[in-house]
Amino acid sequence: MAPEDAMVAGAEKRPVSSVLLVIAMQTEALPVVQKLSLTEVADSGFPKGVPWVRYHGFYKDLEINLVWPGKDQTLGVDSVGTVPASLVTYAAIQALQPDLIINAGTAGGFKEKGACIGDVYLATDVAYHDRRIPIPVFDLYGVGCRLACSTPSLQKELDLKVGKLSTGNSLDMSPQDESSIIANDATVKDMEGAAVAYVADLLKVPAIFVKAVTDIIDGEKPSAEEFMQNLIAVTAALEQGITKVIDFINGKCLCDL
Amino acid sequence: MAPEDAMVAGAEKRPVSSVLLVIAMQTEALPVVQKLSLTEVADSGFPKGVPWVRYHGFYKDLEINLVWPGKDQTLGVDSVGTVPASLVTYAAIQALQPDLIINAGTAGGFKEKGACIGDVYLATDVAYHDRRIPIPVFDLYGVGCRLACSTPSLQKELDLKVGKLSTGNSLDMSPQDESSIIANDATVKDMEGAAVAYVADLLKVPAIFVKAVTDIIDGEKPSAEEFMQNLIAVTAALEQGITKVIDFINGKCLCDL
Repeated sequence: MAPEDAMVAGAEKRPVSSVLLVIAMQTEALPVVQKLSLTEVADSGFPKGVPWVRYHGFYKDLEINLVWPGKDQTLGVDSVGTVPASLVTYAAIQALQPDLIINAGTAGGFKEKGACIGDVYLATDVAYHDRRIPIPVFDLYGVGCRLACSTPSLQKELDLKVGKLSTGNSLDMSPQDESSIIANDATVKDMEGAAVAYVADLLKVPAIFVKAVTDIIDGEKPSAEEFMQNLIAVTAALEQGITKVIDFINGKCLCDL
Repeated sequence: MAPEDAMVAGAEKRPVSSVLLVIAMQTEALPVVQKLSLTEVADSGFPKGVPWVRYHGFYKDLEINLVWPGKDQTLGVDSVGTVPASLVTYAAIQALQPDLIINAGTAGGFKEKGACIGDVYLATDVAYHDRRIPIPVFDLYGVGCRLACSTPSLQKELDLKVGKLSTGNSLDMSPQDESSIIANDATVKDMEGAAVAYVADLLKVPAIFVKAVTDIIDGEKPSAEEFMQNLIAVTAALEQGITKVIDFINGKCLCDL
């Protein structure tokens, strides 16, 4: 056993003490910040000039950090998508060395797979649907499928739906995206999950994915419209889902999740 | 003038001393490593476990670092695309504080815009073509258009073609990608440029983009096939283009490029 494997095994046998929440949008983050009584950290530990925001606090026996990639410095909108999510996840892992990452946010859902507006999903697998590289092996790299940290007890105990998550940088869905999402067998579709999973895997931090459904992709309404309409209400459901997950994690080891 | 602006202004008035090359593929990187007599750095300064590779050396009056995101740890292929490129660019800027970034690599070209196999382009603008977010302002954020560092003298003196660069995570081109590439007025298409530009902008490091054409996107052959066929030959042209650019930069201030 390599020393780092021993460390990981050791970490699995003591209760989780530090959780990093990675959330892409302010509207998604603020209800959680409020519920867990987190406070914004003025000296975030991030490089000067980046818009990334860190909230910190203690909730029950857990140290909680919540990071959000902040507003785009030119356009003022939330820095959604895979690149800002991967950067802030990387920087936060380096600075904070969390035991566990929770990537939480809103998502589109497929009614054909049983998703309804307001459902909160725990993703078992994450993959990309917008990285098509039709060269052998590169094709698999493009899909970049990764398993979430195994959490059979959490899945069993909590009333969360379970499904696969597919990630792409577009809010809409092209026919090519749709084929890839079907190939990924996804129930929910977001814009960050697979990138957070990539960084977590690179730096060997276990990660789970909690996604609340704002819009039905295979429904009748355009995604963007439905997303905007439901965003506020669904972030309340998301906050409740995240709190349930964190309550469950409190006092437990990774291997008991 | 804020202190950091004064620093940037100061940096512009002294010769460039440290250049960071960001290259996505080993096949693209190695001819440059050889030509500039760079050596691989065993202790790269990057976190333990990441596959990122750093080469270092001095060429004329310049300190050169070349970073490459390395091989995917599971699949063994080059870690192409926006997420690994953004991460390695971020980590390299933090560790090395370069005066200038050169993102170099191969690209697809549009013959309608004058591109031919083996052409080496200097990109004036970079933008994304696979981040469609049809919500006002988010749409512009998705496109993420950024200007390359202005280099009028370099453009005039060197025999490089000039055009706009569009970035996406797929090697192929869907009809939606095509519409966005046309909207971006792009002559060349790659898989990393806009992500490197984003990180460079975030951390206020000037960046230029040197891209050599491996395949004609609006031609008759499938991109993947043509890309594989021309990759080796075109990386030689790319190395020559990069060397010309670096020779030109040597001894000059940013404001004289």
